[in-house]
Amino acid sequence: MVKKFEAGTFDVIVVGAGHAGVEAGLAAARMGAKTLMLTINLDMVAFMPCNPSVGGPAKGIVVREIDALGGQMGRTIDKTHIQMRMLNTGKGPAVRALRAQADKVLYQQDMKETIENEPNITLLQAMVEELIIEDGECTGVVSKTGAVYRAKTTIITAGTFLRGEVIIGDLKYSSGPNNQQPSIGLADHLRGLGFDIVRFKTGTPPRVNSQTIDYSKTEIQPGDDVPRAFSYETTEFITDQLPCWLTYTNEVTHTIIDENLHRSAMYSGMIKGTGPRYCPSIEDKVVRFNDKPRHQIFLEPEGRNTKEVYVQGLSTSLPEDVQQKLLASIPGLEKAQMMRAGYAIEYDAIVPTQLWPTLETKKIKNLYTAGQINGTSGYEEAAGQGLMAGINAARRAFNQEEVILSRSDAYIGVLIDDLVTKGTNEPYRLLTSRAEYRLLLRHDNADLRLKDIGFNIGLVSNESYDRFNGKKELIDAEINRLKAVMIKPDQKTQDLLADIGSSQLKDGIRGSDLLRRPEITYNHIKELSPADADLPFEVEEQVEIQIKYEGYIEKSLQQVDKLKKMENKKIPEGIDYDAITGIASEARQKLRDVRPLSIAQASRISGVNPADISILLVYIEQGKIAKVSGQ
Amino acid sequence: MVKKFEAGTFDVIVVGAGHAGVEAGLAAARMGAKTLMLTINLDMVAFMPCNPSVGGPAKGIVVREIDALGGQMGRTIDKTHIQMRMLNTGKGPAVRALRAQADKVLYQQDMKETIENEPNITLLQAMVEELIIEDGECTGVVSKTGAVYRAKTTIITAGTFLRGEVIIGDLKYSSGPNNQQPSIGLADHLRGLGFDIVRFKTGTPPRVNSQTIDYSKTEIQPGDDVPRAFSYETTEFITDQLPCWLTYTNEVTHTIIDENLHRSAMYSGMIKGTGPRYCPSIEDKVVRFNDKPRHQIFLEPEGRNTKEVYVQGLSTSLPEDVQQKLLASIPGLEKAQMMRAGYAIEYDAIVPTQLWPTLETKKIKNLYTAGQINGTSGYEEAAGQGLMAGINAARRAFNQEEVILSRSDAYIGVLIDDLVTKGTNEPYRLLTSRAEYRLLLRHDNADLRLKDIGFNIGLVSNESYDRFNGKKELIDAEINRLKAVMIKPDQKTQDLLADIGSSQLKDGIRGSDLLRRPEITYNHIKELSPADADLPFEVEEQVEIQIKYEGYIEKSLQQVDKLKKMENKKIPEGIDYDAITGIASEARQKLRDVRPLSIAQASRISGVNPADISILLVYIEQGKIAKVSGQ
Ligand SMILES: Cc1cc2nc3c(=O)[nH]c(=O)nc-3n(C[C@H](O)[C@H](O)[C@H](O)COP(=O)(O)OP(=O)(O)OC[C@H]3O[C@@H](n4cnc5c(N)ncnc54)[C@H](O)[C@@H]3O)c2cc1C
Ligand SMILES: Cc1cc2nc3c(=O)[nH]c(=O)nc-3n(C[C@H](O)[C@H](O)[C@H](O)COP(=O)(O)OP(=O)(O)OC[C@H]3O[C@@H](n4cnc5c(N)ncnc54)[C@H](O)[C@@H]3O)c2cc1C
Repeated sequence: MVKKFEAGTFDVIVVGAGHAGVEAGLAAARMGAKTLMLTINLDMVAFMPCNPSVGGPAKGIVVREIDALGGQMGRTIDKTHIQMRMLNTGKGPAVRALRAQADKVLYQQDMKETIENEPNITLLQAMVEELIIEDGECTGVVSKTGAVYRAKTTIITAGTFLRGEVIIGDLKYSSGPNNQQPSIGLADHLRGLGFDIVRFKTGTPPRVNSQTIDYSKTEIQPGDDVPRAFSYETTEFITDQLPCWLTYTNEVTHTIIDENLHRSAMYSGMIKGTGPRYCPSIEDKVVRFNDKPRHQIFLEPEGRNTKEVYVQGLSTSLPEDVQQKLLASIPGLEKAQMMRAGYAIEYDAIVPTQLWPTLETKKIKNLYTAGQINGTSGYEEAAGQGLMAGINAARRAFNQEEVILSRSDAYIGVLIDDLVTKGTNEPYRLLTSRAEYRLLLRHDNADLRLKDIGFNIGLVSNESYDRFNGKKELIDAEINRLKAVMIKPDQKTQDLLADIGSSQLKDGIRGSDLLRRPEITYNHIKELSPADADLPFEVEEQVEIQIKYEGYIEKSLQQVDKLKKMENKKIPEGIDYDAITGIASEARQKLRDVRPLSIAQASRISGVNPADISILLVYIEQGKIAKVSGQ
Repeated sequence: MVKKFEAGTFDVIVVGAGHAGVEAGLAAARMGAKTLMLTINLDMVAFMPCNPSVGGPAKGIVVREIDALGGQMGRTIDKTHIQMRMLNTGKGPAVRALRAQADKVLYQQDMKETIENEPNITLLQAMVEELIIEDGECTGVVSKTGAVYRAKTTIITAGTFLRGEVIIGDLKYSSGPNNQQPSIGLADHLRGLGFDIVRFKTGTPPRVNSQTIDYSKTEIQPGDDVPRAFSYETTEFITDQLPCWLTYTNEVTHTIIDENLHRSAMYSGMIKGTGPRYCPSIEDKVVRFNDKPRHQIFLEPEGRNTKEVYVQGLSTSLPEDVQQKLLASIPGLEKAQMMRAGYAIEYDAIVPTQLWPTLETKKIKNLYTAGQINGTSGYEEAAGQGLMAGINAARRAFNQEEVILSRSDAYIGVLIDDLVTKGTNEPYRLLTSRAEYRLLLRHDNADLRLKDIGFNIGLVSNESYDRFNGKKELIDAEINRLKAVMIKPDQKTQDLLADIGSSQLKDGIRGSDLLRRPEITYNHIKELSPADADLPFEVEEQVEIQIKYEGYIEKSLQQVDKLKKMENKKIPEGIDYDAITGIASEARQKLRDVRPLSIAQASRISGVNPADISILLVYIEQGKIAKVSGQ
């Protein structure tokens, strides 16, 4: 055994510098915590082992939420993307989402330098092998070199490294993502501490050399030509964008897969881990949707200074020879040279119902986990958790109250609540369908939802907060104006309405009422009744959405009110579920495992039925708590 | 075992994309060979695991030689450096050398993209585990995934990855450099093939965060303010340079080392591998030069977009806690935060006397090795070998004659001749003292020495060669002019001579003779007798050096002539040394092992004495070759 030595004392230790780790470390440090970040390979900080992109449905909104709370992901991708697109612009505001193609290396560089520049962070290349546990509390970590680092709180964000095993066809070997060193000591240690561990798996497609693609057989997918940004802080926009390209699989592709399915690790039983249903491998897609004649394949450049192209849609763990054949069957890729083979990776994840909604583990106090280790998949999901774990770990270190986002506050709230309440039996991805208050959790209003929280916990600067409040005032003023102003049926108005096929006015109408007509936009109203001064685009957008969708929003808010009431019904920490008669035994078991903090959370546990909730409510309200555990 | 499959046929396969691999692959491809390059991690192409710098004494001249031959290193560092300095400008031209600080990440990116853009190269992330040997010839490689790649020739450039083991204090674990995956299968395979293998080791210092350095306690080391380039092709120069900084170890540092020496892997016997004498660890330096009160420590930034700083001079495998203390003892680094700990790495290298001067292995035909695997240390040493192995492997693939640089052609010739003739019992570094024809192997004349070769083998473009020939003509013309022109003792001349303290002319004097006066430079001559047209700086420099040092150069060239005669005395390939009576038994053994190609090479083998050489000469000249092996 290597000799141990005291190597420093911190407020917060973050193990890992992937997408969860960087947010956790930056948040803690910016909140004033003396923070240590440890990572296996310093040349791989914020590395993207899979798609070189950030955002997309639900995920894009998470990036905005991270930004509104004072996190980093949005700022970095705004500086380092090669393409930016708003998805679903034709649909309602609830499903609009921003998606960026990243310059993979630049993204890493910017994130690493941001961390290096943060005075409260010590960033060090080191492999953590053990946690220090004293009286059921985590008080630090030990690295492979024997360094003992102590801290008030510790966050583990080990991604897919824990006992990672790469799988390609019938080959399986011990490895982290992209042939990095896996983390075996820490994985064993976590099992040894008694955590419930699952084996999950995720996969990635091959990369090909751009020079060997025949783009004439594909469809170009350019970026938007209006400037877009994830971050509310961004003022400079990248104008020089690179396109992506679209092609399709076909009969031949599918036949190759069918014929080689027996050689697939997925089907041979070699993969024990469960893969993500919503990000399936191509062999999965072909098997599950075997009537679909083709699947989309997007060709996405990995950066400005590389010819590597990510073949989105072709994630696979089929043997390498089959991968070559698959590529060759796809229009445009007939002669494509593969630069990396696709592979699957299997790894240890923690059953997330072992966590409080703060992402602290129930088993060990002051120990937090965030990111892929908690059973999720995706950079944004990791980053969102990292941020919340960083915030809560720092606040705990300072003896401040915990910060929990509710399901009506943010997708991040939905994500964490799902994890800790329902658990997951496959790598969890965020989808818009997971949120019951989709209409509230929009791309456009992330700041309105979260900036106050970010400011109150010290992650949003005064300057940024002032700017935000200015914006809010403008929105309110303009909404109030439109609710008051009467638009008269004069010639100009009637002409404009006729022009766009909207029915003529009989009488005067309030600006807000006119705006509610589906065919009327804020721009029309502006022509008929301009505001005193020109308003910024985000203000106009907000005014339009808030007025147009007022009815729906109101309804959602009423539901949220009900939920809030349920959430305010706290369940005492030491409640003894065995003492409550009448609860079904499955519900009792689940309640004991999850230990929900509120009636609302309890009601979301699968297997806990309304009848059980009623009994629980009565029990709590009668104050008949039999036993309170703890000292 | 994974199922094998045919994955492609090439002219040349290069295993590895470090500094040797990239030159080998690019050279072969640019000579028209269909080339496959395989590397463990595509995000680490041309990675610098140690100092972020290129060039320096002897090594800088190698970079120029690589460039003159049509290699890549010079072009890439010219585009990606953060600082450039000519060393020894005050000394003679033989020891002048250029040294650049690299932007580590940019260097990698540029090299990777150059390879991706080369149409004859297929670059693929893959771990090679086996060679395919048929009838004593290497015909390809097999990757971990079962891919069988066939080629006419194969080059292994596996660096420090072969059974790599990282050592820090009493910790030792299996790993490639910088926590990458080691290459174990291939190492075992090479041993299995019967190659003589040695264990070598090399080390690297800690890196610290620039933000935590107190530069006020250090001395600034700026770059040169005149534009400099390694490559003869470079026309754009980076003007915005970053400084390095100089500080020193002291008594305290040395005491810490003394007190912890028992914990050093170097002295505890844990390290079996032999380290480089000329690049010692700080603990080595303190022990070996224990009367020296201080050692230089250069602080070198690792790039423009990172705060990592390389602590040159502090290479160590002492335990991490000791490293922290060492740093804290050095002025400017009192509060420095370590970002990576220093470490040593032990690895398998091939005994290089098993190679022909083409870098082909004697044991297995069509198999070449280049770089650190051949017992050297250093990026430039690796690159020089890579280039020559690439050239020879491509030429073999096309059935063309081999290309061997002699000791009087290039430092690369010295390097390879030393390796294959003398072997090495420690990681071999180039030093100016290794070259007997130092005055010929200058920074300034690498093109004059090697451009013809580069052009003849197809690595130098017509355009570049034309430019070179133009330069050569200008040099010759100007030298001839100065040898003819008479400078008269007129007023202007006498005034100028008086001004610089040179003695007055009595009679007219030839321009060349005046230039030979130590205090006279070409610029003075130009004032007194200008050329017809303004000459480029490199031409003037060449004229000055060639005239001023004519006598010495002549003498060297005469020695080279003698050497060439000896080199022309070829030793028949199948010579049976046992049949030669009179040779001492040690000499006989060495000759049998090394199988020198010429009498010159034989005479350089240590243990082979002049008496043995005489006997050998007589034996060969009498044509009395007893047995010729082979069919
Ligand atoms: C092959 C593959 C395919 C994927 N496919 C997709 C996909 O299709 N879509 C998608 O959205 N996401 C995908 N992902 C997931 C995505 O990469 C992760 O969700 C995301 O990177 C998780 O972030 P993280 O911070 O949790 O972990 P990571 O980004 O993996 O970072 C983990 C960090 O922990 C460090 N670490 C681990 N162990 C230790 C230790 N013992 N000591 C110190 N440091 C340690 C590592 O060095 C690293 O810095 C894929 C990942 C892989 C590997
Ligand atoms: C810790 C350390 C300290 C050093 N210190 C110094 C120093 O002070 N001064 C100095 O000049 N030099 C130093 N060096 C040496 C310098 O890094 C090397 O000399 C140089 O990088 C060698 O180049 P190379 O191309 O031979 O090998 P590398 O640059 O190591 O490249 C090896 C390549 O081979 C690949 N590879 C290996 N095995 C396989 C396989 N089975 N299949 C496919 N690919 C494979 C790797 O992925 C990599 O691309 C140090 C190196 C290390 C690691």
